[in-house]
Amino acid sequence: CSTKPLEIRKPSIMVRELESKPVIITHEDDRLKDVARKMVENNINHIPVVDSEGILKGIVTSWDIADAVARGKTRLRDVMTRKVIVAGENEPVDVVARRIDKYNISGLPIVDEENRVKGIVTAEDISRLIGKIENRGESI
Amino acid sequence: CSTKPLEIRKPSIMVRELESKPVIITHEDDRLKDVARKMVENNINHIPVVDSEGILKGIVTSWDIADAVARGKTRLRDVMTRKVIVAGENEPVDVVARRIDKYNISGLPIVDEENRVKGIVTAEDISRLIGKIENRGESI
Ligand SMILES: C[S@@+](CC[C@H](N)C(=O)[O-])C[C@H]1O[C@@H](n2cnc3c(N)ncnc32)[C@H](O)[C@@H]1O
Repeated sequence: CSTKPLEIRKPSIMVRELESKPVIITHEDDRLKDVARKMVENNINHIPVVDSEGILKGIVTSWDIADAVARGKTRLRDVMTRKVIVAGENEPVDVVARRIDKYNISGLPIVDEENRVKGIVTAEDISRLIGKIENRGESI
Repeated sequence: CSTKPLEIRKPSIMVRELESKPVIITHEDDRLKDVARKMVENNINHIPVVDSEGILKGIVTSWDIADAVARGKTRLRDVMTRKVIVAGENEPVDVVARRIDKYNISGLPIVDEENRVKGIVTAEDISRLIGKIENRGESI
């Protein structure tokens, strides 16, 4: 009988292991101008919209602010995205990278089983990994 | 005498090999509203600002549009960034990934020796690589 050689694979990097920034949130009835200010002050592009319990209700990005400017909208509820693509803390980063590509987005809120926002993972966080990998002398 | 075993390394992926989108440009005297519209219509976040010869003069991102909303600015020249961090077509992607991390930006115009804009490379383009690597069965 023939046995396959043992395949040794380094375990995948998980979303929870990424160095992502603390998550900044907003609420549905906040003013668009205040949301824009939060983005600028915190140097970020993605803000999850949550209810009073911290449950995810939507997401607003700087691209949505550009959309508001382009179409003359002034209310957050008119530009936020309600059907949010999310990530779980225990998902491998490569799966999330493919999700970002598939939906042509640049970041996803990380949620728990109750859809409570735990963090945010962006293409910038994932791109950072590529810099790290090569830095350690491992080619891709 | 002892000889080291031959070290075989896959060559680094170069910026020119990334699947990036065609570059959309703007000019310094364009209206901010038109710039925002360009972002929305083309589903992008970064627009290089060029002169009539195609020479790079600055960059404007959706984050700058948020900045304009936050501070009530309406002119492109008041929110665009003039000191632009760039990438060359023949640079390895990991070097560019580290540059993105270092400057806390999410995209860089690709320029030639004369500072003419040839393309754009974003954290999303680089993040896509992580999805591809794992897809081919190579762990990171
Ligand atoms: C510092 S980033 C912070 C937000 C987030 N990290 C991002 O990249 O969108 C935002 C600022 O960086 C500027 N910026 C973006 N790409 C740039 C580049 N390649 N070179 C110089 N500045 C850039 C934008 O014009 C904007 O004013």
